[in-house]
Formats: sequence, structure tokens, C-alpha cells
Amino acid sequence: MNRPSITRLAEALPATVPFVGPERQERERGRPFRARLGANESGFGPSPAVIEAIARAAPEAWKYGDPDNHDLKAALAAHYRIGPANIAIGEGIDGLLGLIVRLFVEPGQPVVTSLGAYPTFNYHVAGFGGRLVTVPYRDDREDLDGLSTAVRRENAPLVYLSNPDNPMGSWWPADEISRFIDTLPETCLLILDEAYSETAPPDALPPLELDRPNVLRLRTFSKAYGLAGMRCGYCIGEAGNIANFDKVRNHFGMSRVTQAAALAALGDQAWLHSVVVKVEAARSLIRLIALENDLKPLESATNFVTIDCGRDGGYALSVMKALLDRDIFVRKPMAPVLDRCIRVSTGPEAELALFREELPKALAAAG
Amino acid sequence: MNRPSITRLAEALPATVPFVGPERQERERGRPFRARLGANESGFGPSPAVIEAIARAAPEAWKYGDPDNHDLKAALAAHYRIGPANIAIGEGIDGLLGLIVRLFVEPGQPVVTSLGAYPTFNYHVAGFGGRLVTVPYRDDREDLDGLSTAVRRENAPLVYLSNPDNPMGSWWPADEISRFIDTLPETCLLILDEAYSETAPPDALPPLELDRPNVLRLRTFSKAYGLAGMRCGYCIGEAGNIANFDKVRNHFGMSRVTQAAALAALGDQAWLHSVVVKVEAARSLIRLIALENDLKPLESATNFVTIDCGRDGGYALSVMKALLDRDIFVRKPMAPVLDRCIRVSTGPEAELALFREELPKALAAAG
Repeated sequence: MNRPSITRLAEALPATVPFVGPERQERERGRPFRARLGANESGFGPSPAVIEAIARAAPEAWKYGDPDNHDLKAALAAHYRIGPANIAIGEGIDGLLGLIVRLFVEPGQPVVTSLGAYPTFNYHVAGFGGRLVTVPYRDDREDLDGLSTAVRRENAPLVYLSNPDNPMGSWWPADEISRFIDTLPETCLLILDEAYSETAPPDALPPLELDRPNVLRLRTFSKAYGLAGMRCGYCIGEAGNIANFDKVRNHFGMSRVTQAAALAALGDQAWLHSVVVKVEAARSLIRLIALENDLKPLESATNFVTIDCGRDGGYALSVMKALLDRDIFVRKPMAPVLDRCIRVSTGPEAELALFREELPKALAAAG
Repeated sequence: MNRPSITRLAEALPATVPFVGPERQERERGRPFRARLGANESGFGPSPAVIEAIARAAPEAWKYGDPDNHDLKAALAAHYRIGPANIAIGEGIDGLLGLIVRLFVEPGQPVVTSLGAYPTFNYHVAGFGGRLVTVPYRDDREDLDGLSTAVRRENAPLVYLSNPDNPMGSWWPADEISRFIDTLPETCLLILDEAYSETAPPDALPPLELDRPNVLRLRTFSKAYGLAGMRCGYCIGEAGNIANFDKVRNHFGMSRVTQAAALAALGDQAWLHSVVVKVEAARSLIRLIALENDLKPLESATNFVTIDCGRDGGYALSVMKALLDRDIFVRKPMAPVLDRCIRVSTGPEAELALFREELPKALAAAG
């Protein structure tokens, strides 16, 4: 039977997805995880003020959200001492990444990223027909020189860098990032993904240079603010670039309740600081647990710790699977070299205690 | 200064937006509307069970939503007695429309819709480089024969039809829709937008024929369910077509709290029925108010009533502006012939009472 054709581009796309959710794993296993430490969510939860704001907004859920995101933009602008015209709001960083690729990449153009960096970015590049050019990590950090060289060699219009980095937790100091930006051609746009900015050392974040049309900074309420389930990210950049989002974004796409939640989250900096302290303590505990088991925890500026299991990718995969079997949800990097690690999100003490209890058994099971 | 280039397609897009939100109008006016009757939202609100579900989900907002939308799909599948594989979930119909255009339209290809139909669909067609081919309404209904003729003349891969229709509120009976579908080439995909399905007469909705690869049905929790601010729509269709969404959608794009809200909304059919009854009563009241003022209300199968102001588009625009001046938020169709009308959403009696009070003054002001 004849049927409508999807585009040549869509036809060529694989049916794979960036990540399998823990809920699907739970359904397939037939039982829930006891510790949810795999998706770099914040098990410390959102602020009580946010929980209240969500409940308070619920009766108003019949109204479309303000398509201008005015109040949230104004609050972010005040928070960062920048203009609202320097901010775009979107359905998480994932949504914003899709819009950026769509805006800046013609089909067939090269896009530079690190081998093993954020899969959802790669998914969007493929989805809009870009050609991914990858640069291996060096010493478990994204290779700034390598990325810059690849950009110039390929004449790439777009390069992606996360700092602090996911999945390794590593970071570059701000002056190294600034130096990297200076090496980029003015025609190459840098996506600087700072999803983990709140848990990073202050000197990892370069100043906001709003007159640079070739840098877009991405931040989110999904990590330290504890609102992964609400879907709110934002992009900071030069006003002309920010205005481009209005050409392609889903103008009424932001949930009204999410806008209220993000506004309340930003308003409770005391909660944010308390979470950052808890994240730091949890990182220490995860490091301790790793060391207790003769594994090597990597330094982290994020809300997770990546643990070098000391052998090859197959072994680390076995360790991860043995943890999953024991109801501990963790994930792991899959790219060569990085794949010797597992990645454990920070979370409440009770969940880390379960991890502590099960890790030795998982290591024994993995052989 | 050199700067990154946006794509040729993006460069050519206008900076216009499909709709200005009422919040921006309120900011510009410096005072709130007293009646919010312009965006076809449900002023009757979401079910109390939904409000409770949102509040209950709030503490879990730190978890990403299930990217498979499993529970919501299962509930919709049971509701419609279809398979979960026949359902795609998205961030409102707006988000799904963007994905469909992206999947099915190559740049430059013709896409058929009615002149004056849903602007957000047109926005997406432009946004992915499609060429819009419009067919005028006939007698305030979408012209099925005209649409079908245009599809065949243009060899269009995609055609959009809303039934019941926005902005006119008119509808075709199911057998006419089925006949229309039969006239389409098997290679042309029909988007049948049934956002207003819940308020339509049962005989306006053709049966769900899940073996037809050239029909996608769109429905939403934004209208009768009262959840415009949560962003949840769904698409029903042949499993092969539905699977395509997984190639391009934002897999983690659905808010966890929104999934919980939609699930609770679907579970409270008693509330839905009570809203549908209220919508019907409100339609009658709006009709009455129109007739009291010597205006002609059009028949409606939706949650709004379109009112023929009896003169030209400029006059109807003046009436709308005079209502806005009097703090009554309404909208109006802008396409030729349709533009003689204003469009008034159903809503609580208190808001319609304000409309009743202000309409005569607005008409006097419009001259």
C-alpha cells in the first residue's frame, strides 16, 4: 500500500533514543529501584517554596503560560544583572539544544563535540542532518585544543562544550574556557553547556560576555534546583542571537506551572545553597565509598561522581549491571576509555547507604 | 564584526509570532483583563482531582518524566480501546504539529490548509521551509472539496484540517470527513486536528481507523480538560507513523507533573462531562448575548462562539479593540470574509456577565 513518505533526512535517522528512562527499566525488571542515582537528578528535591508554588499554580493550569516568559526572564535578568533580551527560555536544555542546531546548522555541515559527550546533543545534530565530528577526551577532560583544532580544520559552524563536563564531572577553569573561546573563529558558535554551573567552583564559570555573538551559555533548573521533571532551561547570549529563538521556538510551549516553579526556585537561593552543600557532602561520601572498594573516584564539579573501575569497558558495564540487579540505578559513559567508569549521582544519605551496601556485592558479582 | 550565520531557511523567517499572549497585553495596558475569553481556554478550570494530582506530584518534580509516557499512553489506549503503539504524546498539539511538519515536509514542498485556519500550523510549515497553499473557507466551514482539489493539484504531501474548526467553530459530520479522507491520495498525510473533540457532537468524529497510514488525529488536554497551561497533546494514528515521532521528538520533553495531571484528568470523566455541559450552556448564553445586540452568532461545536458582527473586518476589529479597552479579552479571525467576526471563548457566568455588560458599549464605541 502507498503511504505518506517521511523526509529523506527522517528516513535515514535511527530509531534509537538518547537514554532509556529508569521507569522503563523498572517496568522491565518488574520492581522499582531502591536508589535513583543514575540520571543526575537532585534527590534532595525542589525547595518547599517551589512545591508550594506548584500547588498554588495548579488551579490556574487552565491558562496557557505567558509565551513571553516575562516574569521568569525578568527574574533571571535581575539575578544575573543582564537584560531580558539576553535570555531565551526553553523546555529544558534538551529543547534549547534542538532549537540551536536547527537555527545554526545546514544539513551536511560539520558540528564538533567530544567523543562521549552529551548524547542528546548528538541526537539533535543527527536529527537536523548535521555531520558530527568528535574529538576524544584527554585525561578525562574535554580537549579544548583538540576541539579548537577540529573547528578550524572542518570550518565548523557549531561546537559543543560542557563545563563542568558530563559524563566525567571534570571542568576547566574560566580562564582556560575564555582562552578557548578566543581561539574560535568568530563565525563558529560555541554552545557552552553549564547545566552543572551551580555545583561548580566559582572560578569555573567565565564572565557573561553578552557582546559575543558566538557564545551561547545554557543553564537549567533540572539539576541543583531539583526541577528535572518540570522542564525549564535557559540560554544566555548576545541579544541578536537570542532573538533568533523567536523564529522557531514553540511560543506557547512552556508550561504555566513550570514557569511558576522556576520563578519560585530562583527566589529561594537559600535552598539552592543548602543543596549545593549537600551535593558536596554526597560527592565526598561517594568518593569514600569508591576508595573503600579500591576504585578511583574522579574529581567532580557536578552533582555526580564518575568512578574509574580500573579495568576495561566490559568490566565497568558488568559492575553497572550488577548494581542495577541490586536495585541501584546508575549509568555509565559508553565511549572508549571513558567507558571504564560508572557514574553515580549525588543523593540523600539513605540512597547512598544502599549504594555503599551493594557496591561490594556488585563488584564481586562482576568478577 | 563576523558572527555565526543562521541557516538560509531561518534567515528568511519573519520575527512574527503566531499569537500575542494576554499577559503581554495586560502588561502593555497596565491593568489585568476582567474576563479572559480570548484563547479558548477552559475558565471552568481543571478537575479538583487534577489540582490534587499536580500538588501530589510536586515533591517528585526533581525526577525527569518517564520518556516513554508509559502510564499516560496506557490510560489513553484503554480509554480509546486502541494500542499504546497508536499514540504519541507531545507538548501540546502545537509541539506535535511541529514534529509532523518536520517529519513529512521537505523544504519547498506544498502543504495545504484553509485560509484563516490555525496560525501555529502555518508557523511550523514556514519554519521547516514548506510552501503553504491555502483554500478559502466556504460558508464559514473548511472547504473539503477545495482542500482535496488543492492536494491533488499540488501533489501535496500534507494537508491540515481542524474538525470542529477553529476559528469559526463550525464542523463537518463524520461521514463527510470520511468521504474527504477517501478522496486524498494515499501518499498525502491528513492532520485531523480534533482539539475540540470533547465539545463536538458525537457524530462529528469519524471512527479511529488505525490501519490508515495517511491520517493522524490530534487531541489535547488543553481545551475541555482545562489544562492548557500544562502542555499535553496526543496524536493517534497507524503504528508505523506513530513510531516516527521517536526519531525526532524531545524524549525527555514531557514534564513529569504534566504527565500526572493528564492522567488524573483522563481519570475524571465525570468532571469532563460536567464541563461539557457548562460549555454548552455558556455557548447558549454567548449566542443570546450576540442576538440581544443584533449580531449573528455562528453555530459552534467548540468551547467558543464566533460572532458575525455584520459588517467588514475593520468594524469587527474595532469591536474587538473596544472590548479589550473594557478589559474583556477576546480574539478574532483575521482572514478575509472570516474577519467580519469576533471569537468569544466560553467561560464562567461571571465573566460572560461582564461580556454581556460591555458588548453594547463596545458596539457603540466601534460605531
